[in-house]
Amino acid sequence: MSRWEPDARGRLTQAAFTLYAERGYEQTTVTEIAESAGVTERTFFRYFADKREVLFNGSAELIDMAVRAVESAPAGSAPIDLVGAAVEAAAALLQLRREHARARQALIDANPSLQERELFKMATLSAAVADAVAARGVPPVAATLAAGAGTSVFSAAFARWIADDETRDYPAVVRDSMQELRQLMAAS
Amino acid sequence: MSRWEPDARGRLTQAAFTLYAERGYEQTTVTEIAESAGVTERTFFRYFADKREVLFNGSAELIDMAVRAVESAPAGSAPIDLVGAAVEAAAALLQLRREHARARQALIDANPSLQERELFKMATLSAAVADAVAARGVPPVAATLAAGAGTSVFSAAFARWIADDETRDYPAVVRDSMQELRQLMAAS
Repeated sequence: MSRWEPDARGRLTQAAFTLYAERGYEQTTVTEIAESAGVTERTFFRYFADKREVLFNGSAELIDMAVRAVESAPAGSAPIDLVGAAVEAAAALLQLRREHARARQALIDANPSLQERELFKMATLSAAVADAVAARGVPPVAATLAAGAGTSVFSAAFARWIADDETRDYPAVVRDSMQELRQLMAAS
Repeated sequence: MSRWEPDARGRLTQAAFTLYAERGYEQTTVTEIAESAGVTERTFFRYFADKREVLFNGSAELIDMAVRAVESAPAGSAPIDLVGAAVEAAAALLQLRREHARARQALIDANPSLQERELFKMATLSAAVADAVAARGVPPVAATLAAGAGTSVFSAAFARWIADDETRDYPAVVRDSMQELRQLMAAS
């Protein structure tokens, strides 16, 4: 980044979100985003592969948080607690920006191609958590099952967390939802 | 369908799978698929929106099987057992064509755009099962959590079922995996 473009990534992200909300995602071009952020198109492409990736720029960090939570969980943690630690850590990261998360989700809900990309991100998160759990000595099949359930709780809890009438923070919704799934699976 | 094109859908599907395997999915055109099946392009588009949809043609039937299993489960079934019935019924449908399922998965694994579409199909299945479970009187949040966990078990079990060394049938792998997830969620 040159010193004439302080926080170009941040300004591009902000400009993209504003334009997507105002004009619609499909109607917005990279040229317009760059112009609105006061940088060149070339600068845009230094940070993002395309206009879709502006919305998925935080994926790597999210996955990183989840994996590190598994790695740093206490010795002897049960597999499902390793997964719980992972998704709570990811939720804590998103909690920092609830309004951003809501605006982003509104865009995703309105665009099928973004929904598919978001599902791919969740599948990547699930696979990364499964790998991290397996690296703690859990058999791979069990790690995959636990990570899959935990990621689906993370997604279901997300929808509740961004609802207008929800007052709990995201990690708390994740914790409560995990507990609720536990009870559902025990009752049969 | 005209009487000069008996089972055009089946022949188009067969031709597409053969061409995708031989030449690669990206390299195959609708023109080639239609030609190989001995029908016109127009006939192709009567059955499929595009070449991707040939691979997802069974989705509606799969979801239908799952939903009907929920609807016909015994009165008083626990939410997780309604979900279990749904994913076992879906697995029973796929079990009828294991080699087809394996060939299809190999294509999906090789093409990111197909992976995203497949994830979207699974999300649609999960939402349909959640709706069916809620229609049986289960609170929507619990229905969503149970359906999400069940669908993730269904996916994890699929990967095991198509593995070379797996001898159980798909519904059995689903049942065993559901039981394993139950034990994982109880141990903490």
